[in-house]
Amino acid sequence: MPDTITLDIASDGIATLTLNRPDKLNAFNSLMLGEMVAAFDRTDADDAVRAVIVTGEGRAFCAGADLSAGAETFDYERSGGWNGSDSPVRADGSVDYANPAVRDGGGILGLRIFASKKPVIGAINGAAVGIGATMTLPMDFRLASEAAQFGFVFARRGIVPEGTSSWFLPRLVGLSQALEWTYAGRVFDAQEALAGGLVRSLHAPDALLPSARAFALGLVEGSAPVSIALTRRMLLAGMGAAHPMDAHRIESRAIWARGRSGDAREGVESFLAKRDPAFPDTVSQEWDHVADWFADPDYR
Amino acid sequence: MPDTITLDIASDGIATLTLNRPDKLNAFNSLMLGEMVAAFDRTDADDAVRAVIVTGEGRAFCAGADLSAGAETFDYERSGGWNGSDSPVRADGSVDYANPAVRDGGGILGLRIFASKKPVIGAINGAAVGIGATMTLPMDFRLASEAAQFGFVFARRGIVPEGTSSWFLPRLVGLSQALEWTYAGRVFDAQEALAGGLVRSLHAPDALLPSARAFALGLVEGSAPVSIALTRRMLLAGMGAAHPMDAHRIESRAIWARGRSGDAREGVESFLAKRDPAFPDTVSQEWDHVADWFADPDYR
Amino acid sequence: MPDTITLDIASDGIATLTLNRPDKLNAFNSLMLGEMVAAFDRTDADDAVRAVIVTGEGRAFCAGADLSAGAETFDYERSGGWNGSDSPVRADGSVDYANPAVRDGGGILGLRIFASKKPVIGAINGAAVGIGATMTLPMDFRLASEAAQFGFVFARRGIVPEGTSSWFLPRLVGLSQALEWTYAGRVFDAQEALAGGLVRSLHAPDALLPSARAFALGLVEGSAPVSIALTRRMLLAGMGAAHPMDAHRIESRAIWARGRSGDAREGVESFLAKRDPAFPDTVSQEWDHVADWFADPDYR
Repeated sequence: MPDTITLDIASDGIATLTLNRPDKLNAFNSLMLGEMVAAFDRTDADDAVRAVIVTGEGRAFCAGADLSAGAETFDYERSGGWNGSDSPVRADGSVDYANPAVRDGGGILGLRIFASKKPVIGAINGAAVGIGATMTLPMDFRLASEAAQFGFVFARRGIVPEGTSSWFLPRLVGLSQALEWTYAGRVFDAQEALAGGLVRSLHAPDALLPSARAFALGLVEGSAPVSIALTRRMLLAGMGAAHPMDAHRIESRAIWARGRSGDAREGVESFLAKRDPAFPDTVSQEWDHVADWFADPDYR
Repeated sequence: MPDTITLDIASDGIATLTLNRPDKLNAFNSLMLGEMVAAFDRTDADDAVRAVIVTGEGRAFCAGADLSAGAETFDYERSGGWNGSDSPVRADGSVDYANPAVRDGGGILGLRIFASKKPVIGAINGAAVGIGATMTLPMDFRLASEAAQFGFVFARRGIVPEGTSSWFLPRLVGLSQALEWTYAGRVFDAQEALAGGLVRSLHAPDALLPSARAFALGLVEGSAPVSIALTRRMLLAGMGAAHPMDAHRIESRAIWARGRSGDAREGVESFLAKRDPAFPDTVSQEWDHVADWFADPDYR
Repeated sequence: MPDTITLDIASDGIATLTLNRPDKLNAFNSLMLGEMVAAFDRTDADDAVRAVIVTGEGRAFCAGADLSAGAETFDYERSGGWNGSDSPVRADGSVDYANPAVRDGGGILGLRIFASKKPVIGAINGAAVGIGATMTLPMDFRLASEAAQFGFVFARRGIVPEGTSSWFLPRLVGLSQALEWTYAGRVFDAQEALAGGLVRSLHAPDALLPSARAFALGLVEGSAPVSIALTRRMLLAGMGAAHPMDAHRIESRAIWARGRSGDAREGVESFLAKRDPAFPDTVSQEWDHVADWFADPDYR
């Protein structure tokens, strides 16, 4: 059983990952990183899971990195880093940046969410600050409580944006808005997040989770799970690709492979018969066949 | 004469490509793919053509792939594929994805529109579903009838987005909106398309084509044809390039080459004389000189 | 002392670069290019400078390239080019596009602004046309007078967009809007610029500079200068990167290096003590350590 999160998988296929350190405002630490990664491994592997909602227990979503180490919080050499690797600091005091200890924990989480085979919906119930804000960016959608707050506060703490936010944030909200929020590091309210394009919709606090669940079901019911998994990875890859030919290579393979699948037969037959489809294929069976279409680079 | 489309080139330089299988709601098939590609070859080669409008005959724009093959529609091995190549399925049942038969027909069309030397304006008169929706994405602008409908329905048919849409759609409407439309596969109306940034403007059904023609003329009259052709390719390349240096390389060549052209002399002289310009240069004469600035990768 | 601009560095750390050829509507020429590049070298090197405002003297921001050479304005072989290099035209009349004389001067400026270690705020007081419009795109924010005008007029002069605008413009305003403005080459007003996403906010003419200064101060006060410099380069790099792993590589190095810095200690301590931070680190001391994380390609 994880210590810092809960993972509930409902019978309708909607999983809910709840950050669960409410007395610490769900502050992020190494244990939470590992448990969140393991939770996405589980939702990916479980064909019964159709979509994942991420929310927070109590009044915060995630107030940021756990600052209980005080001024040394972000000194990963002293704090042991995210993975307990040997220190990358050489005898002469220089840093070996190729050492795997030099990895941003938020980015490890961001890349894991990027790779999810299921849609991920942030249901932001309260303060989402620092890593609490950036961890929502690789999620597909951000639904927020009217009481939510956001802050990309890194520059005010003497550090920098992380969690793959430098890839996501300018694409999601535009470069100028991204720079404005990350320079000033202000905490801002849900209305500003909506106006700036960061969140999809606002909801009364009590309505947030029911709305997120209804939204999640609306996304996936009637759609083939393998199609959804591929669509997610294709659009994320396509958004970064230099040329539409890069997209065409993956699309060609995918539409050829899925076009001859049982899912496509069922999709067309059910459409022509005006009945609900019952798609036979599963992500766990099909993914090995398609995984190498997506060239995820290694860390170096 | 093409069977599935018509191509009208008006004396004012605005070409209109009309999808013309109204009894089939202009459903897309291999023949239409070839005839559309040939039409863009013709509009590119004809210096009298300044812009291309794409619309549909009858009540639909394009209702998607022709489903007359039923459940085998997307099984390109059985249906013969887009180009009649030998099957890429090996004796052991595995697929040779490097085989040119494994190419998405919608993507071949998308890449052809991407390469157009003339602005392309979608005038979406009715339902634009599946490939009928994705074929509009590489067009420069989407003007729509208030009666138009859109649907990225792939996941409901057990297949995936195609037509280079995984490159274009997240860039045009944002990642979250792109995922929402492609996961759920709902058919949605013109107002939602406008609110989501998919279309530029809505028009009464009878006003759509006149508005599209007036818009097209407004884009090109007074502007040099070679400049427009270069601008189109430069902005499409720039949008995907990793670094502004990539854009600067092309821009430097282009502004140096065009700066010494007759067009630039005429552009400045006519501006200083406050008269309309009469640009001497033609796309057909100038393109060979510039084509290798745009490194379009091959399919593999 | 520069001839074509002024550079004022106020005691609050806000530098103001003023284009200063008011009798020529601040028309851009080779001298202004060199003086603007030198000004950004100075603001980058001066740790007292926290942000840079760019504005124009008189009624224009920058009316474009200086057309005093008439029809030969853009014929850089005759006009001597931006850097006085030998002509790239070979004896047979073909052009050696690898010759460094074939470089767009606006792009040299654009890349210099791209590389700025301080936020850059355009305060667009009047007409911003041609290079006067494109030079604002690599700036972080565009604030405009209600009396400002914009024009991407290149195609009407027989030339093409430059100044790295083919990288920036489609990302900032979307592809369709970028194409519409660059094809037609119309001059348009501040309201259209706001509606199209080109500018952040409009201001009464007298309020423009005070508003820009207040905005600049609000961005930087309370934030660490090294964090801001890194954030700027990280988000610009991230926006172009193909995969979030590219961002993660830089973020990991940056958060590791800054996490053990005096800035991070001060940032956390001041936050926990609820006092204003006093960050010890300076951009000039820290940049050598981080510069090679950003792989800026050479011109070729």
